[in-house]
Amino acid sequence: MTSQRPREACGIFGVHQHPDAAQLCYFGLYALQHRGQESGGIAVSRDKTILCHKGMGLVPDIFQKQDIQTLGGGTGIGHVRYSTTGGSNILNAQPFVVQHKGRHYALAHNGNLVNAHILKRELEDEGSIFQTTMDSEIAIHLFIKNLKNATLEEALSRTALRLEGAYSFVASTSHGELIGMKDPNGFRPLCLGKLNGRYVLASETCALDLVQAEFIRELDPGEIVIIHEDGIRSFNPHPAPKRHFCIFEYIYFARPDSTIFEKNVYETRKAHGRALALEAPVKADLVMPFPDSGMYAAIGYAEASGIPFEMGMIRNHYVGRTFIQPTQEMRDFSVRVKLNPVKEVLRGKDIIIIEDSIIRGTTAKTRVKALRELGVNKVHMRISCPPHRFPCVYGIDFSSKGELIAASKTVEELRDYLGLDSLHYLSIEGLVKATGIEKKGDGFCMACFDGKYPVNFDASLTKGCLEG
Amino acid sequence: MTSQRPREACGIFGVHQHPDAAQLCYFGLYALQHRGQESGGIAVSRDKTILCHKGMGLVPDIFQKQDIQTLGGGTGIGHVRYSTTGGSNILNAQPFVVQHKGRHYALAHNGNLVNAHILKRELEDEGSIFQTTMDSEIAIHLFIKNLKNATLEEALSRTALRLEGAYSFVASTSHGELIGMKDPNGFRPLCLGKLNGRYVLASETCALDLVQAEFIRELDPGEIVIIHEDGIRSFNPHPAPKRHFCIFEYIYFARPDSTIFEKNVYETRKAHGRALALEAPVKADLVMPFPDSGMYAAIGYAEASGIPFEMGMIRNHYVGRTFIQPTQEMRDFSVRVKLNPVKEVLRGKDIIIIEDSIIRGTTAKTRVKALRELGVNKVHMRISCPPHRFPCVYGIDFSSKGELIAASKTVEELRDYLGLDSLHYLSIEGLVKATGIEKKGDGFCMACFDGKYPVNFDASLTKGCLEG
Amino acid sequence: MTSQRPREACGIFGVHQHPDAAQLCYFGLYALQHRGQESGGIAVSRDKTILCHKGMGLVPDIFQKQDIQTLGGGTGIGHVRYSTTGGSNILNAQPFVVQHKGRHYALAHNGNLVNAHILKRELEDEGSIFQTTMDSEIAIHLFIKNLKNATLEEALSRTALRLEGAYSFVASTSHGELIGMKDPNGFRPLCLGKLNGRYVLASETCALDLVQAEFIRELDPGEIVIIHEDGIRSFNPHPAPKRHFCIFEYIYFARPDSTIFEKNVYETRKAHGRALALEAPVKADLVMPFPDSGMYAAIGYAEASGIPFEMGMIRNHYVGRTFIQPTQEMRDFSVRVKLNPVKEVLRGKDIIIIEDSIIRGTTAKTRVKALRELGVNKVHMRISCPPHRFPCVYGIDFSSKGELIAASKTVEELRDYLGLDSLHYLSIEGLVKATGIEKKGDGFCMACFDGKYPVNFDASLTKGCLEG
Amino acid sequence: MTSQRPREACGIFGVHQHPDAAQLCYFGLYALQHRGQESGGIAVSRDKTILCHKGMGLVPDIFQKQDIQTLGGGTGIGHVRYSTTGGSNILNAQPFVVQHKGRHYALAHNGNLVNAHILKRELEDEGSIFQTTMDSEIAIHLFIKNLKNATLEEALSRTALRLEGAYSFVASTSHGELIGMKDPNGFRPLCLGKLNGRYVLASETCALDLVQAEFIRELDPGEIVIIHEDGIRSFNPHPAPKRHFCIFEYIYFARPDSTIFEKNVYETRKAHGRALALEAPVKADLVMPFPDSGMYAAIGYAEASGIPFEMGMIRNHYVGRTFIQPTQEMRDFSVRVKLNPVKEVLRGKDIIIIEDSIIRGTTAKTRVKALRELGVNKVHMRISCPPHRFPCVYGIDFSSKGELIAASKTVEELRDYLGLDSLHYLSIEGLVKATGIEKKGDGFCMACFDGKYPVNFDASLTKGCLEG
Repeated sequence: MTSQRPREACGIFGVHQHPDAAQLCYFGLYALQHRGQESGGIAVSRDKTILCHKGMGLVPDIFQKQDIQTLGGGTGIGHVRYSTTGGSNILNAQPFVVQHKGRHYALAHNGNLVNAHILKRELEDEGSIFQTTMDSEIAIHLFIKNLKNATLEEALSRTALRLEGAYSFVASTSHGELIGMKDPNGFRPLCLGKLNGRYVLASETCALDLVQAEFIRELDPGEIVIIHEDGIRSFNPHPAPKRHFCIFEYIYFARPDSTIFEKNVYETRKAHGRALALEAPVKADLVMPFPDSGMYAAIGYAEASGIPFEMGMIRNHYVGRTFIQPTQEMRDFSVRVKLNPVKEVLRGKDIIIIEDSIIRGTTAKTRVKALRELGVNKVHMRISCPPHRFPCVYGIDFSSKGELIAASKTVEELRDYLGLDSLHYLSIEGLVKATGIEKKGDGFCMACFDGKYPVNFDASLTKGCLEG
Repeated sequence: MTSQRPREACGIFGVHQHPDAAQLCYFGLYALQHRGQESGGIAVSRDKTILCHKGMGLVPDIFQKQDIQTLGGGTGIGHVRYSTTGGSNILNAQPFVVQHKGRHYALAHNGNLVNAHILKRELEDEGSIFQTTMDSEIAIHLFIKNLKNATLEEALSRTALRLEGAYSFVASTSHGELIGMKDPNGFRPLCLGKLNGRYVLASETCALDLVQAEFIRELDPGEIVIIHEDGIRSFNPHPAPKRHFCIFEYIYFARPDSTIFEKNVYETRKAHGRALALEAPVKADLVMPFPDSGMYAAIGYAEASGIPFEMGMIRNHYVGRTFIQPTQEMRDFSVRVKLNPVKEVLRGKDIIIIEDSIIRGTTAKTRVKALRELGVNKVHMRISCPPHRFPCVYGIDFSSKGELIAASKTVEELRDYLGLDSLHYLSIEGLVKATGIEKKGDGFCMACFDGKYPVNFDASLTKGCLEG
Repeated sequence: MTSQRPREACGIFGVHQHPDAAQLCYFGLYALQHRGQESGGIAVSRDKTILCHKGMGLVPDIFQKQDIQTLGGGTGIGHVRYSTTGGSNILNAQPFVVQHKGRHYALAHNGNLVNAHILKRELEDEGSIFQTTMDSEIAIHLFIKNLKNATLEEALSRTALRLEGAYSFVASTSHGELIGMKDPNGFRPLCLGKLNGRYVLASETCALDLVQAEFIRELDPGEIVIIHEDGIRSFNPHPAPKRHFCIFEYIYFARPDSTIFEKNVYETRKAHGRALALEAPVKADLVMPFPDSGMYAAIGYAEASGIPFEMGMIRNHYVGRTFIQPTQEMRDFSVRVKLNPVKEVLRGKDIIIIEDSIIRGTTAKTRVKALRELGVNKVHMRISCPPHRFPCVYGIDFSSKGELIAASKTVEELRDYLGLDSLHYLSIEGLVKATGIEKKGDGFCMACFDGKYPVNFDASLTKGCLEG
Repeated sequence: MTSQRPREACGIFGVHQHPDAAQLCYFGLYALQHRGQESGGIAVSRDKTILCHKGMGLVPDIFQKQDIQTLGGGTGIGHVRYSTTGGSNILNAQPFVVQHKGRHYALAHNGNLVNAHILKRELEDEGSIFQTTMDSEIAIHLFIKNLKNATLEEALSRTALRLEGAYSFVASTSHGELIGMKDPNGFRPLCLGKLNGRYVLASETCALDLVQAEFIRELDPGEIVIIHEDGIRSFNPHPAPKRHFCIFEYIYFARPDSTIFEKNVYETRKAHGRALALEAPVKADLVMPFPDSGMYAAIGYAEASGIPFEMGMIRNHYVGRTFIQPTQEMRDFSVRVKLNPVKEVLRGKDIIIIEDSIIRGTTAKTRVKALRELGVNKVHMRISCPPHRFPCVYGIDFSSKGELIAASKTVEELRDYLGLDSLHYLSIEGLVKATGIEKKGDGFCMACFDGKYPVNFDASLTKGCLEG
């Protein structure tokens, strides 16, 4: 990813009735931090109420020891949210906690509803008021309405049938129930684990690993689980759920040590790199990633091509913290402050750069220019997925179509724009084959590549509902 | 480096008469941050005075925009200091600035004097008082005494001849002079560059790269340079300077993209890895580092051995920040929070781990144990330098001999202690040969491996003077 | 007030369509800071939306220059909230902002509703959810429901007729309207002013003074004003509004330089002191307050009695900031750190202490003891209001009846408990007469003294609804 | 003091061998905070070393609980320093701690040396270097030089004889000795107390009161005390010490509850007010201070004149914290934000304002203007000391002569400038008589009024040595 990083729509975590619930959520979110760095929160149900602590920033900055102790044990859920500029706001931090008739409910959401505006209008007609711009607030309003004369299971089912789009939820009640819920296309990951006999829910298995919970299984598309004192109850209110995993989770978002949709991410990325070596071979002295994106595909490409793998650019480990901006004369500074090319390794060489994606292309262009100035001979680039031509409406913050450089340029035009000797993208077929499909009938959402959106949406409202 | 990281004795930077002196120092220190994370400071000479700003922590935390603007332009020097526990103190932050007869002097020091106590006693007998425990304060006292009826050049020469041990200094005067100075063994790196006609001094070339200064040359052992308005004056007061580069700068400390002692660090580390593959081959499925130490040697080992390179453990990019400590039940947590092993890559495999050094061995032991529990089959370890058997008295914070595990265990005992199937260290001969020596007569300080200390010291005072 | 200070239920401020709206709110809240130190917030309506910034702590800590600039101009409302321990929470900070059908509404509330639970139950039956425990959230839910097929005026009137208890509201809409509203008993102050042709609303006139607005008048009990581009519209939906001013605003809460309910607070307090001198004269060497409470009544008492006024105890101006707690041996430390008695003024004297109220009595007891130990001869105390025997349900945080020491002790028992030579409270008749009533038919709420509550309430719910 | 407040040259505190030394210093400094708000520090001697913690700001902000615990018990000294703009610097914070031959010494200083530059030049000729611009650093250099072949007592005596100007010192050694020292004119206060058998030193008795130490006596001019395990040793190396107390300590600096130079400050200020009523009577409706300065003189004036005392302006208790500056249109804002006049008390009245001093006159002018605009009839001002016509070179930061408005205007011109109906200053004779002199031969330093400086100084160096 050589450009503005796409921002994932959040990471979620939950644990049922555990004396260290807050601490487990803390570490679960710590492991899921890559899915959201804007804000975070933990809500713990205990003694018929729900305590919640939220804040802006990274998990270790939001929670002090005292906060975790105050939240304490019970049924906990947690959330990390992506980083945006401007709309970033503590009000939009999750979990979202409400009270109704003496009961409290907490909800944390990963994904994006495409019918949020329709649902909101309906609710407002009935007098509902809103304090945030989050889809989650709409979902919880709907759920409370559906609770009238209904069991928890019925209310969740009715609510699920009204929500359209991508959602993986964890939720809790002040009675200690823990709820997990996935949309019928299963866009976003959500898995179930067990820790000392207590159920755990997490966006990715890396969070289970960190708290040393045992992985049980992923939730099925459309599945709802209610975990209570007597065990787990699973049901699926959707008539025809069908898997449409977000394939970009494999390519970019998920942590390489996670297993999602039943495949390890590291191995999958290496397979993409190997496929790329077969599809688009080229003679060169070395293969390198722009650390850290493209790392695993680069290892796969090197393996399949026999060309040596090198870390041709060194990442400054202290970047990420804010620093003072340099004067104009220090041109191209922002490239060098993050990545310094190793002259001795690169000068005079023909190199292949492996990237996982190109969104806007501006960063890639600047980096290629820096390599040229250093004296690199030929610069080839290989991208481990097809060109991004369509925005995502299911929870990934790909800016509008206009900001996707591949939407308006051919590969050849892009090669020229980036100043490359050659540029190749992995084909859709190559990507799907390298990723593999375990179960018959399964599929991926690849709307960002092919424009085939598994769930219809009102394009005129897209902009508004791209939050969440 | 699988154990408590050895701590470098600081990074230094200087720039002569530049309108953006403070900002250049800021970015110079930013690039040298790996050499010290405890404290930092910048002093700028202008208008016959010296302004200084120092603080605890990382460079971006110490300096706000306003601080850099206040420091402004002139002749600037900067310093980053290593992180210790306990003795860490703002008083010991550098540069060290003093006034004498209306002139100000600033000094920043990388290294360690072995005759500090003797010099201090002499100075105290003459009535000198000390506010810090830093060698630098002793050096500056001595320098001021030597200034009496002497030119700047004479005072520096006389001072240099009294200092024993390792030192690379940058210093400045309120008259705008910039001074660089290296001990006659040349233990620590210090190089000279040029930026738009202005001289720059830096511990490593990566700092020159970031501010886009051109590399000119390294200072010679014992060389002193005084840079003033009319140019640069170089002299060497030492009768028989002889190179004894710290070889551990290549193995561990310096940034891979730096060139020190005339060799690129990345290439040198790869050469160590290749040498290791020849000295200690073993059959395995994959070669991996514990990121990020051992990374480049691992690439070299993989290349020479033909065994695939893998990133078998994934580093959590958000670690480094403080976080809440887990309860006791979450055993081995500190391993997992930093590095998560990728089960799918490692389970059932024979692996070779490449490390750059083992100091205490405790972290390595825990990591190997975690790999075993995961189901790795055979675990071989290869270290890209000889065993550390002796403490360093020239500025690297290797704890006392008792803390160096290789000082009390044979390699076989250590293999057993770490739970490895095999363990090999690169030989001294292999290390020297792979590192290469460009000029005849040059040599390395390898006292930490062979106990041959290039400068004598009073062992009874060692403990006390290991600061600085 | 010699004990735990009662905590006022907030200060409110509003300004209509002013280019410096945020800044005016900032200074208005600054002047009203004595009415609430827990949290504060400002909401500004502009361009069909409402921006809001809230935080914990004092006004200068909550708002930075950038915040005020971002909020900018338009129609602004602000709120400061009292300080509590425990339940203090950013969620409960005001103004409260909601969205409904594309419009935004902001509300800030001073007072307490006694039928909050009834209203909440009704709303929940219709599916409303709540995120806070504030009365204000109930009021705004009700208002939105009432907006259906109604004008703003109708919706406000209907809402006002459902709310029971004490409320002074300022509110705004995203269309720029500014709303002021007082309950039909007029418990809490709210006045109207004008600044360069723009209307201003404020809890007390001291806020008008600071922003240099001209005082126009107080709102009548039950009055609602809607200020829009074309002017001000006033109406009163209540059939029989009747003044029941909170008399304790005069005695303790309001700032002495404010005029509330048409009388200056400073002069009123002096009148209480004079009345006390007439009701309970005693021979003594000096009259003194425990600064700063009782100050003005003490001046009045000295004036009427001819006994010299002295500042017998000196307030430490730096207290208020948190400080490290002393060890047990430093007994009575918390008294001395705030107030140091002036030995030379007090030793051997007969003194009269004037206080404005006694709630728990613990602080008064400790202070009297300290005076005795110093060598004061006779200690008389005069309280400038009757004994507090009943809790307040209209917005003042008098803890429950059990915590009011005068509810369980006779004056003689209390004199004995406090270690006084004599103790007298101002009589209800004396208080009313000294305070004065301007208009025929007006009255005060003196429920905390006489238990006559102007608005009925369900005692079983009192505890729960004492927030707000 | 109606203008820029003069800034005292620091408060000092010391305690000998107490298990809660750091905590006692903390509270001692807390009580002395009015003498300096720029920076503070505590140094504790224990186990042959001295620990020190210093910082910028107020005492409760500088020290956290952990800091006090780390400093712990032993012999402690503390210091608070006045607030300046610009030169304010952590380097200049005290106590000043140095090491020499394995011993540590800590020093805290209140006052100003007039021969600092001469001493510094001498020391520099011998090779001494300086890190700060503080007089204290010069004194300690001198002391260490004098220690050569001398006892502690001899070294202190020799040092004292070389220092010219005003100094009250507390100092400690790593051997646990506590030292107190006053210049031979006794300009600044320093008193001795006892707490559970342990000696305490403090600038003012209010610090003894807070830690509940018993007052023993003030140090004599020129007296040096060394407190060690075996008791206290007092000596006076000066041939002819003679009291020249700073009379401005009574008028303005010291806390009213302190007793300094054997008189209570509160009573002394009242006596000044009474003397003023006799010297400059005028017919009026009320007497008032600008709180809080002039408070006690106003009580005295009211008492002697029979005119009622009123608090005509109300201080905002939350001012002192930084706040956002208003736009230009909010004219005279800085007056009103601090003090709000009570219209009802003042309008149409003839008033007498009692002030303790006028330095620049700008604030007084603005306040008088605000009173006029409010509708006050006649405004008389009475100052409880003579006009300030000369700068102080002994430790009070009266800006240069040019900034003292009374140095360039007659009283009549000043009355006109301030917009008053009448203005009178207390005469020198009236001031001295009202203050009283207990012992024969005692005197005051009144150089700021009469230009008679008890210690000569080189006027050309004045500016430079006005620090400290």
